[in-house]
Amino acid sequence: MRSTFEEELSNLHLRFSEMGMMASEAIMKSVKGYIDHDKELAKDVLLKDHFINVREMDLEKDSFEMIALQQPVTSDLRMIVTVLKASSDLERIGDHAVSIAQETIRVKGEHRIPEIEKLIAEMGELSTSIVEDSLEAYLKKDEGLAREVSRRDIKIDEKSRTISKLCIEDMQKKSDNVLSGTSYMLVASYLERVGDYATNICEWVVYLNSGHVVELTHKGENKRM
Amino acid sequence: MRSTFEEELSNLHLRFSEMGMMASEAIMKSVKGYIDHDKELAKDVLLKDHFINVREMDLEKDSFEMIALQQPVTSDLRMIVTVLKASSDLERIGDHAVSIAQETIRVKGEHRIPEIEKLIAEMGELSTSIVEDSLEAYLKKDEGLAREVSRRDIKIDEKSRTISKLCIEDMQKKSDNVLSGTSYMLVASYLERVGDYATNICEWVVYLNSGHVVELTHKGENKRM
Repeated sequence: MRSTFEEELSNLHLRFSEMGMMASEAIMKSVKGYIDHDKELAKDVLLKDHFINVREMDLEKDSFEMIALQQPVTSDLRMIVTVLKASSDLERIGDHAVSIAQETIRVKGEHRIPEIEKLIAEMGELSTSIVEDSLEAYLKKDEGLAREVSRRDIKIDEKSRTISKLCIEDMQKKSDNVLSGTSYMLVASYLERVGDYATNICEWVVYLNSGHVVELTHKGENKRM
Repeated sequence: MRSTFEEELSNLHLRFSEMGMMASEAIMKSVKGYIDHDKELAKDVLLKDHFINVREMDLEKDSFEMIALQQPVTSDLRMIVTVLKASSDLERIGDHAVSIAQETIRVKGEHRIPEIEKLIAEMGELSTSIVEDSLEAYLKKDEGLAREVSRRDIKIDEKSRTISKLCIEDMQKKSDNVLSGTSYMLVASYLERVGDYATNICEWVVYLNSGHVVELTHKGENKRM
């Protein structure tokens, strides 16, 4: 029979994963809303961000109580610390979805550049999938998958650089492109950060498995603790 | 005589504050480097970011060990959880200083717009001071100061909107302004996030004092836990 503590831990684990799915859905919807100029979808992202924030608060509260009442050690404590720390990354992914949704609402029938919108859509897919796959690695506690997923952040950064370059060229060519160009650049910078947060989640998967906090940057790996 | 645990806790508290000072110094230097086109100062920010990251790892490691070995409860545990969570905010302030420093190095003698650079410098001062004052509130465990400081984030957001508006107008007027205009807008968006992180630190000061996690957004206060 499983102890109450084991059940609580398993519940914490699941609710963290659910929070991750809420965050990845928020990013997916915010980019779709942005590309389709769908203000209703953008408003839906804004409304639902509240639930992501509440979920983080609940996880903080429950983690605190589990530590205080059950005094876990080693791998159990590691799991709770992971939820405490990585839930901040998920909450910030939600914040960036909000920023993209706000950009969708702010935009007022500006001149559009389809070539760049296509790239933004691709970048949105890359960002959503890196978040989803980092969560799969977390659920499976699969360190190999986490390392593989984190390397995909390079592609997101490359896409961001391509978008910036094109935007600048288009804005220099024609002043009509300035409003949309600056908006595209901002959205690309938000999606770039989302890739960074997904990489952080991958780092926490390595920590869960090994007890070592590492930095999975593109410049190699630093052992953290 | 103070117990070893009390000494460890006080040490954790101090090293967290030091990390905060490293982060606020990074922001101050990164903005100065950006405005002065001082690539050496920018490189200094990039080099020193490593020490901010290492400090976060050390705080994580020590917090984990203190929880595992000393099994603290109530206000002592609250303090350790605060350091665990809020050190992520400080680390991200450091990351944004790095982004500004990278922007300084990327910029290649572009056409400058002194009027906007002046506003960026002012925004940098506001951002540095909100970080410093959120740390003062943390050191003094002063909830009133934390609430007062968090309200100043509104001024940072206003400044960011002013900068965006001017950049867009200048880029529309003259294509020579596009490269610098997009750079100014990105830097303003980084400084805006720094204000958000400082607000998070203010929220942790309220938590330290009251045990309640609140959201100190401009739209009022939500009780979190």
